[in-house]
Amino acid sequence: MTSIDGKQTAQQIREELTLEVARIKEQGGKVPHLAAILVGNDPASEAYVRNKVKDCEQVGYGSTLVRFAPDITQAALLAKIEEINQDDDIDGVIVQLPLPDHINPEKITFAIDPKKDVDGFHPTNVGRMAKGLPTYISATPLGILQLLERYKIETAGKHCVVIGRSDIVGTPMSILMSRKAYPGNCTVTICHSRTQNMATITLQADIIIAAIGKAHFVTADMVKEGAIVIDVGINRVEDASKKSGFALTGDVDFDSVAEKCSYITPVPGGVGPMTRAALLYNTMLAAKGEVY
Amino acid sequence: MTSIDGKQTAQQIREELTLEVARIKEQGGKVPHLAAILVGNDPASEAYVRNKVKDCEQVGYGSTLVRFAPDITQAALLAKIEEINQDDDIDGVIVQLPLPDHINPEKITFAIDPKKDVDGFHPTNVGRMAKGLPTYISATPLGILQLLERYKIETAGKHCVVIGRSDIVGTPMSILMSRKAYPGNCTVTICHSRTQNMATITLQADIIIAAIGKAHFVTADMVKEGAIVIDVGINRVEDASKKSGFALTGDVDFDSVAEKCSYITPVPGGVGPMTRAALLYNTMLAAKGEVY
Repeated sequence: MTSIDGKQTAQQIREELTLEVARIKEQGGKVPHLAAILVGNDPASEAYVRNKVKDCEQVGYGSTLVRFAPDITQAALLAKIEEINQDDDIDGVIVQLPLPDHINPEKITFAIDPKKDVDGFHPTNVGRMAKGLPTYISATPLGILQLLERYKIETAGKHCVVIGRSDIVGTPMSILMSRKAYPGNCTVTICHSRTQNMATITLQADIIIAAIGKAHFVTADMVKEGAIVIDVGINRVEDASKKSGFALTGDVDFDSVAEKCSYITPVPGGVGPMTRAALLYNTMLAAKGEVY
Repeated sequence: MTSIDGKQTAQQIREELTLEVARIKEQGGKVPHLAAILVGNDPASEAYVRNKVKDCEQVGYGSTLVRFAPDITQAALLAKIEEINQDDDIDGVIVQLPLPDHINPEKITFAIDPKKDVDGFHPTNVGRMAKGLPTYISATPLGILQLLERYKIETAGKHCVVIGRSDIVGTPMSILMSRKAYPGNCTVTICHSRTQNMATITLQADIIIAAIGKAHFVTADMVKEGAIVIDVGINRVEDASKKSGFALTGDVDFDSVAEKCSYITPVPGGVGPMTRAALLYNTMLAAKGEVY
């Protein structure tokens, strides 16, 4: 069994991007520049945005952090996005979610120019993915594709079972794994809360992608010997041994399932660290004009 | 076994839309108006567009047929689309494909304002579908959903196997059948040319949607007793008994499969007639502003 190391793979991607920035600078090209918009003072959001800006600095990207008080109007926020859309120096822009209740997150997300939507949340970019066109794939799906690719996991003709149908993980993963590309070319089954006989289906899987948001949902009796298991879940479970009183765990019952797998992603340290690297990856695509 | 009558269902939709137009007129509202653009003189394209315009007249919609010589420039075509995008009287616009080689069909399709894209081909509308937002669903998938709905076929918790992954039928159907809605809430498996053990998978299906473009591909030994079979294929096969020398047949070996099914769509007369009605349906949504 190989434990897939997302932390190390993310680090590898950052190193590649650092070299790429050096190459761009040498050739007098445009260094990637990410703008991040943060509204309000939610501590978790602050930490996420801080990390994204720090990641940019680490690989040599330009970055702009735009902060607004929680009472900013939707119109003022839209005006700022329009200004960034028009700013040729900025290649990618993200708006940290959640937003205050008086702001419609759809209105904001959809106002970002798809060409700069490095989060890959704009319907135009999701549609381009479904049509098999070049696009920004959102962070978690892109992170999973990168793990499969960098561990050289064969996917063509395999049966991939995706558990969960969220529009940020399950649905895009089902589209991506069935497309005519690598990673892809899988027969794909998408399961969810309404699925009957879940174990009968997962037992057929060569590849399981668990993204249903329930701790220990995938147990050993649901997994075929030699399967590849990608665990997207990040669930809090009570754990008296931790100072915080809780531990993070995936959707997969790791200890029992790992014994049956050929590959498995741990939580934490599997898919999670890849999502930050994915944002850097998309920002490079934007700067190089490789999508639009 | 019930043979699903697409011709009659399409007629029923047209009648409902005719009544809706009468209601709109009575209330002094905006009567739907479709613009169709035809480039060149391909006989098949001429027939398709003529039928679409005739359909509009039949239900009481306004329609505009814009014809161009085959040597129109891409720029001139784009200019016309922009003019239609700005024309408040026109609710929906379609460009008949294929286009001459010197015109990029993607450029043209993507230039249509998504709000008027009643064919549902624009990436923004495909992405809205994948995100579960109100959208124009393209003709064939919408036609299939309407058949399932109007025949009151239960879909929740069923296993739907989609054969084929094209971006106009297979992929959107797999997304739609798994979404949290009716018709939908299925466990969905998408199969294609790279799928191994196809029959093992189709034998698990409560609902089969065949859209692989191969005559008689789905045979009786691949179908579970009582399954619902939707046949999207339109294949030409040689038939000496016909004046034209060929007959149209679906992806399903109808005679043998029909005996095992609870419901089946014939070819012709099943999904096919629904696609024209779907365009009228979307044009009504556009006129009423129910998507955007």
